[in-house]
Amino acid sequence: MKKTDRPLILVTNDDGIFAPGIQHLAQEMAAFGDVLVVAPDKPQSAMGHAITIHNFLRLRQVEFADGIAAYSCSGTPVDCVKLAVYHIIKGRPSLLVSGINHGSNLSINVLYSGTMSAAVEGALEGIPSIGFSLMEYGIDASFAHTLPVVRSVTANVLKHGLRQGCCLNVNIPPAACGPLKGIHVCRQAPGHWADAVETRRDPAGHEYHWLKGEFLAKDQAEDTDVWATGNGFASVVPVQFDMTAHHELQHIATWDHAL
Amino acid sequence: MKKTDRPLILVTNDDGIFAPGIQHLAQEMAAFGDVLVVAPDKPQSAMGHAITIHNFLRLRQVEFADGIAAYSCSGTPVDCVKLAVYHIIKGRPSLLVSGINHGSNLSINVLYSGTMSAAVEGALEGIPSIGFSLMEYGIDASFAHTLPVVRSVTANVLKHGLRQGCCLNVNIPPAACGPLKGIHVCRQAPGHWADAVETRRDPAGHEYHWLKGEFLAKDQAEDTDVWATGNGFASVVPVQFDMTAHHELQHIATWDHAL
Repeated sequence: MKKTDRPLILVTNDDGIFAPGIQHLAQEMAAFGDVLVVAPDKPQSAMGHAITIHNFLRLRQVEFADGIAAYSCSGTPVDCVKLAVYHIIKGRPSLLVSGINHGSNLSINVLYSGTMSAAVEGALEGIPSIGFSLMEYGIDASFAHTLPVVRSVTANVLKHGLRQGCCLNVNIPPAACGPLKGIHVCRQAPGHWADAVETRRDPAGHEYHWLKGEFLAKDQAEDTDVWATGNGFASVVPVQFDMTAHHELQHIATWDHAL
Repeated sequence: MKKTDRPLILVTNDDGIFAPGIQHLAQEMAAFGDVLVVAPDKPQSAMGHAITIHNFLRLRQVEFADGIAAYSCSGTPVDCVKLAVYHIIKGRPSLLVSGINHGSNLSINVLYSGTMSAAVEGALEGIPSIGFSLMEYGIDASFAHTLPVVRSVTANVLKHGLRQGCCLNVNIPPAACGPLKGIHVCRQAPGHWADAVETRRDPAGHEYHWLKGEFLAKDQAEDTDVWATGNGFASVVPVQFDMTAHHELQHIATWDHAL
């Protein structure tokens, strides 16, 4: 890696290295430091915190906008972070940004999201990390209104740092919702996918199944990301990875655990 | 699904439907209720909370030990839960158990683990859910000493229930560590993978990469799962899925968030 006095910023995503969102994000980062893109060679949405352990990984140096150094990776978003840190950089970047995702990562979707899992992996590695998502799926979505949010949150993280074990989940409403009212720091809303399965038959008559579903927020209090983005704000949720249900420890310890 | 007065117990895993661990688990569950196995048709270790959204899924009814109803699924462990709930059962089972995993799921490995992600998905669905892991990878690992733990925790969950949004992560030391001293209810230890990348060249001279690494627990206090299993106990960690870093909300809200 090129060594300069500027911070090294690792950029990844889950929509794949050719998605418009990551091009916007990498180009914005160039104002803050030296940029390295390591991103999946194909869409890896909803891959969660998956890593590749039963197969090998390929890395390929690719052309990227503005001559930014970039590698495509055959694995998941978390694989990209691991290969960047342990093989390409051989050290920790100053910042990791993931996205800009094409689609929302509000509420419990932090669990399914490859974009956010890359940011969580960054936090596990002790790297200040941010995941950015635009709440619009289309390949032709407009990102212009997201860029001031990206700049503001990035500048804050470079200035203030992030506590060890904490990363940020930033969601931005679509341009069609009108000018942003600001940034709202908030918690992950409780929510749930009301799923459905659509069953079809292939030409040979065998059944196959598509998952589909509708996301339902259970709580839209004003301190949640669902409320914020539904009311014209970009949401910033600090995310940590201790999944212990601390409030249940005492109760469960009272059970009879004799073997 | 067969309708009886007995609880319906959904069994899944991430090692695949032909792994010995899931056979032991399903056979134990038959003492508690009617058992349905829906598990991946191939190993899906380290798939985290991945779901399949860019491809369809196949389900196939398969022969299983003791005539237990069983389906293999072409997707991830979380896909298995979704297909079981929304397509096969068309409702919620009384209990979901995942495992018995061949290998540890202590500490932050709850994030990477397909076994635990299936249990977390169960909790998201409002199903009392438990993930069981034997801390030994071998296909020929001995499971006999794990079964009293499986029975004890299962009986407790059926008796006491689990609070909405909480599931259990149970890890059991290998038989070689000697008789279990008991069950320890504890928190997820902080930890980290010190990863490495091994690069090789294929016959055509092109590089490929294998992820490998060593897990390092950062904190081995007596109230952690790493301490418990390192000291002869099976660990039970209650797990929840609010990843908000609540303790950081106030601090981050003080930043200048002007756009």
